[in-house]
Amino acid sequence: MPQNRICALFDISYPIIQAGMVWCSGWKLASAVSEKGGLGIIGAGSMYPEVLREHITKLKKATDKPFAVNVPLLYPDIDKHMAVIEELDVPIVFTSAGNPSTWTPWLKERNIKVVHVVPNVKLARKCEEKGVDAVVCEGFEAGGHNGKDEITSMCLIPQVADAVSIPVIAAGGIGDGRAIAAAFALGADGVQIGSRFAATRESSAHNLFKQAVVKADDTATRLTMKQVVPVRLIKNHFYERVEQAEQRCADAKELRVLLGRGRAKAGIFEGDLDEGELEIGQISGLINDIPSASDLIDRLLDEYRHAVVTLPQLGPSSPN
Amino acid sequence: MPQNRICALFDISYPIIQAGMVWCSGWKLASAVSEKGGLGIIGAGSMYPEVLREHITKLKKATDKPFAVNVPLLYPDIDKHMAVIEELDVPIVFTSAGNPSTWTPWLKERNIKVVHVVPNVKLARKCEEKGVDAVVCEGFEAGGHNGKDEITSMCLIPQVADAVSIPVIAAGGIGDGRAIAAAFALGADGVQIGSRFAATRESSAHNLFKQAVVKADDTATRLTMKQVVPVRLIKNHFYERVEQAEQRCADAKELRVLLGRGRAKAGIFEGDLDEGELEIGQISGLINDIPSASDLIDRLLDEYRHAVVTLPQLGPSSPN
Repeated sequence: MPQNRICALFDISYPIIQAGMVWCSGWKLASAVSEKGGLGIIGAGSMYPEVLREHITKLKKATDKPFAVNVPLLYPDIDKHMAVIEELDVPIVFTSAGNPSTWTPWLKERNIKVVHVVPNVKLARKCEEKGVDAVVCEGFEAGGHNGKDEITSMCLIPQVADAVSIPVIAAGGIGDGRAIAAAFALGADGVQIGSRFAATRESSAHNLFKQAVVKADDTATRLTMKQVVPVRLIKNHFYERVEQAEQRCADAKELRVLLGRGRAKAGIFEGDLDEGELEIGQISGLINDIPSASDLIDRLLDEYRHAVVTLPQLGPSSPN
Repeated sequence: MPQNRICALFDISYPIIQAGMVWCSGWKLASAVSEKGGLGIIGAGSMYPEVLREHITKLKKATDKPFAVNVPLLYPDIDKHMAVIEELDVPIVFTSAGNPSTWTPWLKERNIKVVHVVPNVKLARKCEEKGVDAVVCEGFEAGGHNGKDEITSMCLIPQVADAVSIPVIAAGGIGDGRAIAAAFALGADGVQIGSRFAATRESSAHNLFKQAVVKADDTATRLTMKQVVPVRLIKNHFYERVEQAEQRCADAKELRVLLGRGRAKAGIFEGDLDEGELEIGQISGLINDIPSASDLIDRLLDEYRHAVVTLPQLGPSSPN
């Protein structure tokens, strides 16, 4: 069997990528995942440039395995983030929330591998044209900021896989090994897992936030704030205020005032479950414990293998 | 390998169920699917009782294989529908859009197998308690009327499979054999496929509607009319009017007036692509032709087998 394309691209053992997540994925989580043979990602979206420098430096002391940094392209200090990334020889950058044309040439000139997050087929094709090495196709069920197209993983993965020849990483709704098998069956070459890693021991999220993820059921999250930037979060008091404002036709300006600043930090990092922005994916309904990242990866692989070997044989004749 | 639970329950060859769909799935489509070894469903939602009688009678002349009728429980003439179902010895009934307590005992007393459509874990559990034989868990990506919870197939299938011991049928986002493999990996025992069968030769939809499904891309549909009853449809002129009304905070009453009567018939059966309600799933972006139902089932099985045998082996040791 040929080597998996994502393992080959990143020089890793398993095509399991831990998503870069604000206030969750610092050096502790990313180094644990990379050391285990997956790809750990430091989420730069919640870090000042000097904080990012500290996290990269600590990660490199903890593991010599490949890792990545996720940079949301709309953040104001992006030039400084990219300077840190270049200076500290980060081998792989995941870019999101922006135009893949902006930074891809600069990163490729420096021999940094580039992955861009896409919500639809059109942007996946554009990424391939612009020289991106792989795309993450992120479904409607994913936590945190999300696209406006509302395309689910089940629909997005096969259409992106058909549209581009570069490797495709599935994200959104992947909480166990069954979903990894599903993503591969749909045409993905790898998976990016967020919510499940947010509720691990090495995640830097507040314990109350992790407990809220564990308690969440299948209906606990909602994609909201669509007039500003769509975000999936656990329904809490803050969410109810947003819904009330939207029901009386509040405009984007009013919603921005209601959102204010620092709500994601308050919810995820400081554990304010009522007024914080509890960004997490819909699959949190499936998450029932807080394991170590290493144990989680062992479990995901076991579940994957079990899902694959128990697939039924359909039809009168066996496959070629 | 033990027999598939859905094949055993319905006495069919393949665990592939053609969804009951208004204006698409009459006796021609349902008999073609059942004759091929899947389960064909007559969609009673768009039929007067005497029309349903005619379709069941014609189906039974065309095939002696098992088939089902789908009955939306909120339709006004439901007593008459059920009387026709009893009189003509329909072996299996799929109920949706209502309470599984209402008709399950009556159907079970008559030795009719009952399947209920659910959008979340809570209703799946209730179905099992009430003696339903199997549940269809329908994801956010599904076409036509949909639940309010917006849970995608990737998240819903494994959580429902974990919650109940009766067989689980996955619906929503299944357009090819890759998605059948994904649904089984996630824990489903069978699949219910709507959109893909809506664009077959035997579907009674208007040819212009079928062409619109073929032309649709990944971003073509939207779940809308959430204040009245959520429905997924192709974005057209009618949809734009709904969106404009919602943007100025129109209430449910105004939206009902805008919807009026007969829009689904106009769109699907009469081919009014501008003003009709073009109910179809998000996976229509993947649908590019109008095959016969028999050829489609052969293709789905081939794609399934290919998806299964090409799944990568992950991890240092092989399974078992």
